[in-house]
Amino acid sequence: MTPTPSPIAQLAHVELLTPRLEESVWFFREVLGLEESARQGRSVYLRAYEDFYHHTLCLTEATGPGLGHIAWRASSADGLKAAARSLQDAGWGTGWEDGDLGHGAAYRFVTPDGHPMEVLWEVEQCRVPAEKKSLLPNRPQKRPLRGVPVRRLDHVNLMARDVRAVREGMQRLLGFRLREQKLGKENVEVGAWLSVSPLVHEIAVMRDGTGATGRLHHIAYWYGYPQHLIDAADVCVEYGITVEAGPGKHGPTQGMFMYVFEPGGNRIELFGDIGYLIFDPEWKTVVWDVTKESDLERSTIWFGGKLPETFYTYGTPSREVVKPRRS
Amino acid sequence: MTPTPSPIAQLAHVELLTPRLEESVWFFREVLGLEESARQGRSVYLRAYEDFYHHTLCLTEATGPGLGHIAWRASSADGLKAAARSLQDAGWGTGWEDGDLGHGAAYRFVTPDGHPMEVLWEVEQCRVPAEKKSLLPNRPQKRPLRGVPVRRLDHVNLMARDVRAVREGMQRLLGFRLREQKLGKENVEVGAWLSVSPLVHEIAVMRDGTGATGRLHHIAYWYGYPQHLIDAADVCVEYGITVEAGPGKHGPTQGMFMYVFEPGGNRIELFGDIGYLIFDPEWKTVVWDVTKESDLERSTIWFGGKLPETFYTYGTPSREVVKPRRS
Amino acid sequence: MTPTPSPIAQLAHVELLTPRLEESVWFFREVLGLEESARQGRSVYLRAYEDFYHHTLCLTEATGPGLGHIAWRASSADGLKAAARSLQDAGWGTGWEDGDLGHGAAYRFVTPDGHPMEVLWEVEQCRVPAEKKSLLPNRPQKRPLRGVPVRRLDHVNLMARDVRAVREGMQRLLGFRLREQKLGKENVEVGAWLSVSPLVHEIAVMRDGTGATGRLHHIAYWYGYPQHLIDAADVCVEYGITVEAGPGKHGPTQGMFMYVFEPGGNRIELFGDIGYLIFDPEWKTVVWDVTKESDLERSTIWFGGKLPETFYTYGTPSREVVKPRRS
Amino acid sequence: MTPTPSPIAQLAHVELLTPRLEESVWFFREVLGLEESARQGRSVYLRAYEDFYHHTLCLTEATGPGLGHIAWRASSADGLKAAARSLQDAGWGTGWEDGDLGHGAAYRFVTPDGHPMEVLWEVEQCRVPAEKKSLLPNRPQKRPLRGVPVRRLDHVNLMARDVRAVREGMQRLLGFRLREQKLGKENVEVGAWLSVSPLVHEIAVMRDGTGATGRLHHIAYWYGYPQHLIDAADVCVEYGITVEAGPGKHGPTQGMFMYVFEPGGNRIELFGDIGYLIFDPEWKTVVWDVTKESDLERSTIWFGGKLPETFYTYGTPSREVVKPRRS
Repeated sequence: MTPTPSPIAQLAHVELLTPRLEESVWFFREVLGLEESARQGRSVYLRAYEDFYHHTLCLTEATGPGLGHIAWRASSADGLKAAARSLQDAGWGTGWEDGDLGHGAAYRFVTPDGHPMEVLWEVEQCRVPAEKKSLLPNRPQKRPLRGVPVRRLDHVNLMARDVRAVREGMQRLLGFRLREQKLGKENVEVGAWLSVSPLVHEIAVMRDGTGATGRLHHIAYWYGYPQHLIDAADVCVEYGITVEAGPGKHGPTQGMFMYVFEPGGNRIELFGDIGYLIFDPEWKTVVWDVTKESDLERSTIWFGGKLPETFYTYGTPSREVVKPRRS
Repeated sequence: MTPTPSPIAQLAHVELLTPRLEESVWFFREVLGLEESARQGRSVYLRAYEDFYHHTLCLTEATGPGLGHIAWRASSADGLKAAARSLQDAGWGTGWEDGDLGHGAAYRFVTPDGHPMEVLWEVEQCRVPAEKKSLLPNRPQKRPLRGVPVRRLDHVNLMARDVRAVREGMQRLLGFRLREQKLGKENVEVGAWLSVSPLVHEIAVMRDGTGATGRLHHIAYWYGYPQHLIDAADVCVEYGITVEAGPGKHGPTQGMFMYVFEPGGNRIELFGDIGYLIFDPEWKTVVWDVTKESDLERSTIWFGGKLPETFYTYGTPSREVVKPRRS
Repeated sequence: MTPTPSPIAQLAHVELLTPRLEESVWFFREVLGLEESARQGRSVYLRAYEDFYHHTLCLTEATGPGLGHIAWRASSADGLKAAARSLQDAGWGTGWEDGDLGHGAAYRFVTPDGHPMEVLWEVEQCRVPAEKKSLLPNRPQKRPLRGVPVRRLDHVNLMARDVRAVREGMQRLLGFRLREQKLGKENVEVGAWLSVSPLVHEIAVMRDGTGATGRLHHIAYWYGYPQHLIDAADVCVEYGITVEAGPGKHGPTQGMFMYVFEPGGNRIELFGDIGYLIFDPEWKTVVWDVTKESDLERSTIWFGGKLPETFYTYGTPSREVVKPRRS
Repeated sequence: MTPTPSPIAQLAHVELLTPRLEESVWFFREVLGLEESARQGRSVYLRAYEDFYHHTLCLTEATGPGLGHIAWRASSADGLKAAARSLQDAGWGTGWEDGDLGHGAAYRFVTPDGHPMEVLWEVEQCRVPAEKKSLLPNRPQKRPLRGVPVRRLDHVNLMARDVRAVREGMQRLLGFRLREQKLGKENVEVGAWLSVSPLVHEIAVMRDGTGATGRLHHIAYWYGYPQHLIDAADVCVEYGITVEAGPGKHGPTQGMFMYVFEPGGNRIELFGDIGYLIFDPEWKTVVWDVTKESDLERSTIWFGGKLPETFYTYGTPSREVVKPRRS
C-alpha cells in the first residue's frame, strides 16, 4: 500500500546527438540561455541556470540527430547498487562505466525497446566563475542575459514499440510510479507518465506506431510560466527555429507545452507550467480511454491548435557513440 | 501629406444578434466578466470594466446569430454632421435615428457589402451603483470578480465580397487610414486593417470567398496580456465554450488572438496583446503579398496552431431587427 | 547520509479561527475562488480547485483570529503510527482524536512553542457534484469562475519564540529536512524552511521577537505565476482587502509573494512562483547569515518594496476551540 | 469643445547625459535589449526593437547624469512651423538647429522651468542590416536575444518647481491635453499627465519640492506585460542595477511601474502595462485631491510597496552639452 521508496531520485542529464554541433550549441546557449560547462572530445556540456549539477545536457557530434543516453541519479549510494542489481537480474543491464565529466561511476542499461540509460550516484555540483555567481545562495548561477532562459531540465519522453514493457520495467526495477496512462483498443497501452517525485512525470513513454524502436520523442526544459512560452515562440520564429506545436496545454499532466526542433533535428519541449504536483501517497493512476471520443480529444490537447502528424511519427533514434574514455 | 483629422473618434459599440439570449448573456457576464447596463425589449446592454460609456455590446434576441449594427463615435458634433453628409452623398446613408439607450441621434448607413453601421456623437457615461464604483477615479467601475474579465471593446472584423469597396469608403468617407493590407493574385484585396487612432485597427475587412455578403467575422474584446488568453482558454474549455483557434499570434497587426464562439453562434476574439501602436503621421501601409509563400504563411499565423477551415468560411450575417422605438 | 523516508507525506489542511466567519468565507470564496465543501457547527470547510481532498481550509468562528490547528498527512498507515509514537515519546503528543469531516483518526500534538497540529492517514477525496466536475480527469473540479482562483494549499509559516526547538522536533520526530536557514548574532536561529518533498518548504518557522509564543505567521495558497499575484493585488485593493506587502520575491525559497489579511485578521500569502524544487538527496542547507549586511538585505527581499514592521510583529495566536464531537 | 488637432504627433527621442557612457550603454544594450544605431562624438544612439525611427535614446558622455533634451515629432511639416511660431511668440523658443543623426531641422525651446526640448518633422526610419531584419514586415527589427528587451519608448516625466507653468504651456503652445492632475493644498498643482494621443501621457510633470528647477524625473520604456517587469527586476538585482521601487501599480494612469537607476545615475521607468487608453474626445481631466487622505494614498500607489523618499527628491538636471556640429 505504502509506496516503497524509489532507488532513483531524479533525472540527472541527457545526451543528445547532433549532426550540427555548433548550431545546436548556439540554440541552447543563445535562445534557451543555457550555460556551457565544458567541452571534451566531440561533446559540449551545458546546464540551465537553475540546474545545480555540472550539466543536464551533453551535445555530442554524430552523423544524425538522436539520443545518446539518459542518466538518472540514484537516491543514495545503496540505491545505485540496488538499482544495478535489479537491472542486471532483469537482463536490462549492460555493465558499469567509469563516469564522465560531472559524475562518478554509472551503471548502464537499455530498455527492451532500446533506449540507452544509466544510473549514477556521485555528482559534481556546478562550478561557476565569480562573475557568474548569483547573489542568491540558493540559485546555482546568475540568471543569464541571453535569449528566453529556461530554468531547469524537467523530463524525457520516449517512443516505444511496446510501451508496456518499458513502463513496467521502470516501475518494477527502478521504483517509478505510474501517474497517468492512456489506453487504446483492447487496452493496448498508448501512453504512460511516470515519476519518482511529486512531478507528474520525469519520464513518459508513448507508442511508436511506425514500427521503429528505441526512439526519443523529446526532452523538456522548464520555464514555469506560460508567458515565457509566448516569448520563446516569438524568438524561435524570428531566428528560424521551427515550432512544431504550441503553445498549448495537454490534457494528460496538464502541462503547458511548446515543441520545437533544435538545429540538429531533436525535438525539444519548452515546458511552461508544471501541470500539477502529486503529494498523495495513495495516488490512483489517471486512465485515459482513447477509444472514447471525449477522452481521445482531451487526451492530446486541452487547448491550443491540433498536433501535426509529425508529432506521432517523428522521433530521433538511439545511437551508439563510441566515446574515448577519460584518461 | 499630413493626415486630415478623421470625423470618427472611436468604435462605440456593437449590436450582436443571438438565438440564445440568456446563454449569450451568461457567457459575456460570467466568463468574460461584462457588466449588465440595462435591458430593454429583447435586448441586453453590457460593457467591460474599462469601457467608459453606457455599453459597448448590445445583445438582441433573434432567430439566428448575426450582426445588428456597428456604432462609431464621431470626434465632435461637427464631425457627426460632416460624416453624415459624406455618407449620404456617397449613397451609403440610410438616414437619422433617434438614438438608443446610452446615446443620442445616430446617422445610419450600410457598406456596399451590406454591413449596417451608424455614427453618433452624444453618449452617456456609464452610471455605476455605489458598491460597484472603483476606488480608482480613472476606472469606470470595479474590476469584477467574475470569470476572466476583459478590459474593453477593441475592434470589429468584417467579411466582404468586395474588400476594396468597403475599405475605400471607410477611408474616403470617414477618415480611416489603411494600416496594413493583404493582396492576392492580380492584386485583389484580401484583407485590410484600418484605424483612426494609433491602434492598428478599429476595423478590419477580410475577403469572403463563399459568395456571401455583409457578414461579420468577429468582434474583439481586449485583455492586454497573453496570460489572460491562457486563463480564458482554460475556462472556455471547462465550461463548454468552443475555442476555434489560438492562443496564437497573427503576423498582420501582431495581435495575440484567441477565437471562441459565444453560445449564440457569433465569433468573439479575445485579444491578448495590443500588437503595436502607430504614432507616425507618415505611416506607410504594410503590404502582405500572399502570392509569395513566405508572406502567405506569416500573413496568417506568426506562432500558434494553424487556423481551421471555418476561420475562412464561417461568418454571421447582417440582419434587420425591427426594434420598437423608445417612447 | 541517505535521507530516511519521512513518515509525513504532505500538508493536509489548516484550521483558521475568525471573528467574522461569513466575511472570511466571502473572501476565500469570491476573491480566491475556493469551493465550499461543507458546513458543520461553527465551521466552514473549503478547498481550492487543484486540492484533491475534502478540504484544505477549515474556517471556525471564534472571538478573534488565530490558528485552530495544522494537519499533516502521513505517508502511510504505518507512518502515522510511527509518527504518533515519536511525538508521544518526545512529549509533544496530546492523544488521538476521532477525526473530522474529510479524514479519519488523527494524532494530536503541540510544538514546544504551542502550535497545535495533528497527523492523519485516512482522507476522503473531494466529492464534486456533476455540474462542477472538470472535463479533465486529473483536475479535482472545474476551474471556478470566481475571483482570481488559487490552485492549491502550499505551506504554513509559524512564528516561534524558540525557532530551534520547533525546527529540530519537526526534523527528528517527523522527518522534515532543513532546506534553508537564517542565522543571527551568536548563531541564534532566526528562520527555518523545512520540507518532506521537493518543495522548498511545507513549513517555515520564523523568530517571534515580541515575546509571544505559538503564533501563526501565515498560510499560503499557490497560484503558479506572478501574473496572478498582480491580478489578485488589483482585486484585493478594489474590494477592501488589505495588502500588507508585495508582490515581490523573497531571497530564501525564491518565492514570489503577496501578503494580505483576510477579513478575520489572519495573514494569507498568495504564492506566485514555487521558487525552486529540491531533488538532490544530498541537499546542503542554504544558510543565510543575517549578521552580514548583504545577506540581511537579500534574506528578506530579492525584489519588491520593503516589508513593513507588521511583518515582523503581527501574528495570530493559537487558540483552543471547544468543538462538539461528531455524533 | 472639439479638441483642436495637436501640432505634435509623438515623443521622438530623449538625450540623456551620463558620466559612465560605456556602462550606461551596457545597461541599455544587455539588460534592456536596445540596439545601437550609431556612435558620433561622445554620443551613442540606441532604439528598442519596436521603435521605428533611427533612435529613441541618445546617450552623451558628460560630467554627471542629466537630461540633454527631449524631442517631439510634429504631426506635419506645417505642424512644425506652427509649433515653432507659437513657441517663439511665447518666449520659450531658442531657435532652429540643423538636426542630428536620424532627423532633420529642429526647433529648440526651453520650458519655464528649464527643460530643453525640440520639435522636428523629418525623421529617418531605422536602417537594419539584413541579418537583423525581422521576418515581420511590421516590426522594425528582430526581437533581440539580449536581456529582457523593452519594446518602445513611451513617455518622459519631468520635475518642475512650477508645474502649472510647464503644464499650461504644453497645452496652449503644443496642443497637449490634460488627462489627469493632482492638486494639493490651495489647489497647488502637484502633478500633471498630458498627451496628444490616446496614451494617458507622453509627458508628466511633477512638483519638485526641493527648490531645484528643470530636472528630469525619468524616461519610460514600455514592456506591455507585468511579467516582464518581474523578469527585469530579477536580472536588475542579479547584475547590480538598483531597483528604486516596484514592480507596482500607480493610481494615476494605472501604469504598472518599476523604477531603476541606469549606471550613469538617471532614473529609468520600466513600464509594464499601458494603463488605459483615452479615445473619448470629450475626456474630462481626472483630478486627484491629495489633501484627501484616500486620494493621497491611491494617488501614488494602487498596489506594490511604498515609494521611497528618493522618489520625491532625486532628479537629474538639465545640462548644456556643447556638441560639435555635423560636418
